[in-house]
Amino acid sequence: MHIITISRQFGSGGRELGKRLADKMGYRYYDREIIAAIAQRSHLNSDYVENALETPVWQMPSPTFRHSFSSDSLFQTDQLNLLLEQRKVLEDIAAKGEDCVIVGRNADVILAEFHPLSLFVCASMEAKIQRCRERAQAGENLTDKQIQQKIKSIDKNRARVREMITGSAWGDPLAYHLTVNTSDWDIKSLTPAIADFAQRWFEKK
Amino acid sequence: MHIITISRQFGSGGRELGKRLADKMGYRYYDREIIAAIAQRSHLNSDYVENALETPVWQMPSPTFRHSFSSDSLFQTDQLNLLLEQRKVLEDIAAKGEDCVIVGRNADVILAEFHPLSLFVCASMEAKIQRCRERAQAGENLTDKQIQQKIKSIDKNRARVREMITGSAWGDPLAYHLTVNTSDWDIKSLTPAIADFAQRWFEKK
Repeated sequence: MHIITISRQFGSGGRELGKRLADKMGYRYYDREIIAAIAQRSHLNSDYVENALETPVWQMPSPTFRHSFSSDSLFQTDQLNLLLEQRKVLEDIAAKGEDCVIVGRNADVILAEFHPLSLFVCASMEAKIQRCRERAQAGENLTDKQIQQKIKSIDKNRARVREMITGSAWGDPLAYHLTVNTSDWDIKSLTPAIADFAQRWFEKK
Repeated sequence: MHIITISRQFGSGGRELGKRLADKMGYRYYDREIIAAIAQRSHLNSDYVENALETPVWQMPSPTFRHSFSSDSLFQTDQLNLLLEQRKVLEDIAAKGEDCVIVGRNADVILAEFHPLSLFVCASMEAKIQRCRERAQAGENLTDKQIQQKIKSIDKNRARVREMITGSAWGDPLAYHLTVNTSDWDIKSLTPAIADFAQRWFEKK
């Protein structure tokens, strides 16, 4: 069984790369399916699950403050349970024994014993803003500054969640096998290059 | 003309990768030839040139201290001249118009206008120590701690020289197209994977 994990900066095209890579290699693709499975196991709403899993626990309000908002305290308990459920869902995926690409969720660390090929996908801020613009939904009219703030905020949370779960820094090149800067690529052209690399990686093992 | 530049942590196998990549792709390989060319142009000894180019200018002794060692002051003047000569040598290489691999010398930044594919090669400290051990010359008997100190010292200098010349951080994944962690590879198996990637890169341009 071959597992490819993709961690990525928001707007870097990492998700698109994961999807295309799975298509090209005939691998299963996991991304939002993981959130859906966690939601189902926890009898919670998908959006709630996603939000809880992407908000670092220590960004929760202080205990005193929380006291007046009991839902926040509930949220924190949920978060820890959800992290456990996430681990189970990822282990279930691995247990199927199918070749797959998993985007996000720190799957590279949680499934380390299955020796995934782990990729980190990054891009310059300029390229990320451009990519966000291109895939913006109709009616979404953020300024470049607003998009940049969104990118920074999401990536800050991803970095903190990773540090919490894994104890290692997010985006540190030594924590991944390959770090790809997509600034000068369109993802469609990049895909076969990464697919070749992945093939070689799994062959040499 | 295709140029591949390789920046690398000491002991990561980046030089070996560069050599093998050049062999595999039929590209010319430049590494110590550059030092030799600079030495020739400057009528200086190769070892002296290499040392001067790998020592950050601001690590020179203070002016007062230097005063009593006039050779140090000479050294500093030489450094700046050597950086200019290095630029000329790299530009001469590019002017030949041949496909080539260039290891080190911040060639990715100096030759940016030629749009090289720029790689950064890193590895875990453990893997780097192991690699240094394997290629140690007979009679070289450093402890792991001594090897680690050597690696850190050389890489610290490389980082500072890069910052001085380019104003950008050494090893920042956004400063390269691809960052390869060689910890779990032998360089021989890695070479065709990177060669494939490079081929795709130049094809898409």
